[in-house]
Amino acid sequence: MDILEVGIPGKWEPNLPDGHISHFALDIGGSLIKLVYFSTNDEFDVVDKAGRLGKQSLGKGRFHFANFETSKINDCLEFIQTKQLHLGGCQHLEAPPTDTTIIKATGGGSYKYADLFKEKLGICLDKEDEMDCLVAGANFLLKAVHQEAFTFMHGQKEFVNIDHNDLYPYLLVNIGSGVSMLKVDGEGKFERVSGTNVGGGTFWGLGRLLTNCKSFDELLELSHKGNNRMIDMLVGDIYGGMDHSKVGLSSTTIASSFGKAVSDNKELADYRPEDISRSLLRMISNNIGQISYLNALRFGLKRIFFGGFFIGGHTYTMDTISVAVHFWSKGEAKAMFLRHEGFLGALGAFMSYGKHGFDDLMFHQLIQSAFLAGDKIGSPTNGKLSENESI
Amino acid sequence: MDILEVGIPGKWEPNLPDGHISHFALDIGGSLIKLVYFSTNDEFDVVDKAGRLGKQSLGKGRFHFANFETSKINDCLEFIQTKQLHLGGCQHLEAPPTDTTIIKATGGGSYKYADLFKEKLGICLDKEDEMDCLVAGANFLLKAVHQEAFTFMHGQKEFVNIDHNDLYPYLLVNIGSGVSMLKVDGEGKFERVSGTNVGGGTFWGLGRLLTNCKSFDELLELSHKGNNRMIDMLVGDIYGGMDHSKVGLSSTTIASSFGKAVSDNKELADYRPEDISRSLLRMISNNIGQISYLNALRFGLKRIFFGGFFIGGHTYTMDTISVAVHFWSKGEAKAMFLRHEGFLGALGAFMSYGKHGFDDLMFHQLIQSAFLAGDKIGSPTNGKLSENESI
Repeated sequence: MDILEVGIPGKWEPNLPDGHISHFALDIGGSLIKLVYFSTNDEFDVVDKAGRLGKQSLGKGRFHFANFETSKINDCLEFIQTKQLHLGGCQHLEAPPTDTTIIKATGGGSYKYADLFKEKLGICLDKEDEMDCLVAGANFLLKAVHQEAFTFMHGQKEFVNIDHNDLYPYLLVNIGSGVSMLKVDGEGKFERVSGTNVGGGTFWGLGRLLTNCKSFDELLELSHKGNNRMIDMLVGDIYGGMDHSKVGLSSTTIASSFGKAVSDNKELADYRPEDISRSLLRMISNNIGQISYLNALRFGLKRIFFGGFFIGGHTYTMDTISVAVHFWSKGEAKAMFLRHEGFLGALGAFMSYGKHGFDDLMFHQLIQSAFLAGDKIGSPTNGKLSENESI
Repeated sequence: MDILEVGIPGKWEPNLPDGHISHFALDIGGSLIKLVYFSTNDEFDVVDKAGRLGKQSLGKGRFHFANFETSKINDCLEFIQTKQLHLGGCQHLEAPPTDTTIIKATGGGSYKYADLFKEKLGICLDKEDEMDCLVAGANFLLKAVHQEAFTFMHGQKEFVNIDHNDLYPYLLVNIGSGVSMLKVDGEGKFERVSGTNVGGGTFWGLGRLLTNCKSFDELLELSHKGNNRMIDMLVGDIYGGMDHSKVGLSSTTIASSFGKAVSDNKELADYRPEDISRSLLRMISNNIGQISYLNALRFGLKRIFFGGFFIGGHTYTMDTISVAVHFWSKGEAKAMFLRHEGFLGALGAFMSYGKHGFDDLMFHQLIQSAFLAGDKIGSPTNGKLSENESI
């Protein structure tokens, strides 16, 4: 079967028809709102085995992805309103009949902004736990989507074949504003074993203060042109250019992030924003890689999958995380990344429509088909998602 | 025996007589130079068992401690010159007789600045490995000095009785510009098992850039008056004031350090330096506490001793590290601190005079006595060491 296409992340083209929008789900995080919706093309012609032409609503379908800054939540509300996403939502059978649309949502914002969605769009957010959704989303992607997972090191991307019978256990590291680390043992079987408050929000927050960048993408863009050695204290800076070979630290190892600023006698304005951004990105990526590895080690997990919007397909971020995991594990563990990394929670919330007895045969079939389809699902390119881009 | 007093950290009083300075040793790190010297009072009168009065050069002695910014290394050279510390150094027996004084030194700067010491003072730095010295210094303090180790949590300081027969193994975490983590199994038996580049240099370096503070102490002082909630994104900020109770995170847990800066639409100047300093200190202390605990767990170590100048006896730093270790270990592990935390490497370098065949009976006896003296050694107060303060 080839009834599901996972949307190709890339530039949002507002004039493309969405077809019939069946469901949408939200993941409202501290910094970003992630939105996933599924559309089927009602006009899709099908020919059955008897050669009869007909319409197939369970035909060609597509996942769409969009994201918004949480602080600009009105953009998200407007997007939902304009595309009339909420009119494709389904009614809860068990609830008394009302005009209220119930939409699956996860993330802390599903609590914080529940009243706002009710007031502005008449939407009732049905809250699903953030961790449940992350795991459901990751399991879905790893099982249903061909070439979803890949390694990335020294600029080389390599897709990883996932053996569905040997997927568990794994460590899932979701890097949003903060970082959650989950040991996943099966469908719905997991434990949040660790996390760190040094995450994407730290990169973006500190980066804004230090560089005056106006967006996350601008800050990341800067990092590509920077040289962290201008501001980080390297082992060689302390050892007069030499390695500290007795403990296996080369002269180019970072001894202290931002450590050169201690003695440079310079002010913030004397440093290039590019170098600051690079140093910050390395500090945070390296730290997350290290803590992830230590947790994987603790539970004997060989596979670490990294998700979350902080990564955003950025090669340098992935490279740094990979190098950190490689360095600390002495080559024993490998970092793996997911092409739909930013949408694990939103996809998981979407999946949860299937478990609450909604009377929507089409939806059930779609989800089921998606899992069955497995390797036959289209191959989205690893595009870069920016603010308010999707598909 | 009561022949050794460990110096009381406090304000340096240049007019106090040092007596005869027997030895000094240096630990030249990326940000700070730590200097330890030992003086005996030649004028000390002793009465022997037969009741005869005499002079005892192996009498009342004292360790002195001083530190300098590495970028102001000339201050250190001047201090050595003024106090004529190098004239108390000893000649290496195996070397051909020269006028060169050999001084034990450790840290990367013992390589980087070797030529400078030779040129300016005629001192030849005899390099000892940094990790060897840290461990030797920690073992010395833990065994020889009464009330050296203590716990600190929620403002409560409690001294820890060290059972000399049950000291090993332990994790030693030295927080200098960067952080080293060593699993210590005995005298000279250890392995550097981990570390992090997010250390004291990061706090000071980033703090300088963000607040324009001119010194480490000024930055720390600021942190006492700050409120990290003004800039950190808490769980409650994401969850609309609620806990994320399913995973055990209270609303006041930091979800993302500096995460509020993402959406506040403020510039650096709009934040109070106090709040920035507090947030930075919590971020770094918490991170070090977490990585330390994960490494202790990895090797089944129950005791974690924290040393290094970053701590500097600052209660809030110790509290944050303690809380982090307590939080991540679910109360299983305890953070412990050392009163002479900043001088582990320098003390270790000093100890190494004893192992290289110097013909200095007095020195041998002093070190030996220090170890034997154990509980009888005086109790230095837990003073705060600032730049160029000592004793």
